[in-house]
Amino acid sequence: MSVVYCALVHHPVRDRDGQLATAAVTNIDVHDIARSSHTFGLTGMFVVTPIDAQRALVTRILEHWRVGAGKRRMPHRSEALAICQSADSIAEAREQIAARHQQAPRVIATAARASGDVPLLSFSALRTQLEAAGDEPWLILFGTGHGLTDDVLSAADVLLEPIQGRGDYNHLSVRAAAAIVFDRLFGQR
Amino acid sequence: MSVVYCALVHHPVRDRDGQLATAAVTNIDVHDIARSSHTFGLTGMFVVTPIDAQRALVTRILEHWRVGAGKRRMPHRSEALAICQSADSIAEAREQIAARHQQAPRVIATAARASGDVPLLSFSALRTQLEAAGDEPWLILFGTGHGLTDDVLSAADVLLEPIQGRGDYNHLSVRAAAAIVFDRLFGQR
Repeated sequence: MSVVYCALVHHPVRDRDGQLATAAVTNIDVHDIARSSHTFGLTGMFVVTPIDAQRALVTRILEHWRVGAGKRRMPHRSEALAICQSADSIAEAREQIAARHQQAPRVIATAARASGDVPLLSFSALRTQLEAAGDEPWLILFGTGHGLTDDVLSAADVLLEPIQGRGDYNHLSVRAAAAIVFDRLFGQR
Repeated sequence: MSVVYCALVHHPVRDRDGQLATAAVTNIDVHDIARSSHTFGLTGMFVVTPIDAQRALVTRILEHWRVGAGKRRMPHRSEALAICQSADSIAEAREQIAARHQQAPRVIATAARASGDVPLLSFSALRTQLEAAGDEPWLILFGTGHGLTDDVLSAADVLLEPIQGRGDYNHLSVRAAAAIVFDRLFGQR
């Protein structure tokens, strides 16, 4: 399998009015998406926030599940959260991956909507690319709040096609969207 | 589309030692799975718990998002939670569906593992069956805690094949598992 990371991005994201915002870190997002990431074989997960106190919170969450009371109560979460770390920006996550793999990752943005001038890639096309990829790294971005900003989408190498349900309603949580994206790209069926 | 309900079951489920237990209702499970259900066109969702105070909590969660402060802040959650209600048992959920559709639902159990003597159906086979189904109702069961008990699995008409990730680790949250199941059965791609 290829080398794939994900980042749960809390800034820059959009708020409910479409304005630039920084979303708060949610405990359940961290361990839920870490479990999905580990189940589908991702190499690592970044929790991205520029707020020092929020990164300290991430560290506390990780320690709780990795070495604290949480590990005793739910040992399998410890294993999933071992692949998780914080970063202060998408750029820092990219740099950490580049340093680890001697190569900058290709960045895949996700959104519930198509956006402007970024080429939209289908899940099946990306799955084929990832299966053919050697050891070059990839980074999949998920936005919290009301999604990644247009600037982030435009800066990505690839924008993944939106998940289509049935009908017009499309308000999946970031936890649900990440699970579906991983399953479509890496699930065995 | 066929008539499909889901139930988020808090009893009877297994605890971490495999013993019979009643799991606590979690706010985020309710609105997360309601959003996934509505995105993928399900007809309704039941939150199943035998504990009166927990069903009262479900009612409060639903009212918060349907008519209260939550509706003003996040109107799209109101729409998703409109399809959600509580029930005191799986049997009551079945009866309510039967009363509504003049026909008992076929029951589909989900589990992270195969189990005994219940026929295991693949996602693609069930998807085909659901697409060919007329207006007879179906009910998909998801277990909280450490999953549905063997008795529930044995009593179901169908046991859906487990979701396979990569490798041996398979500890998806019920929120992530439900999202993937709905996508595999109803997602457009």
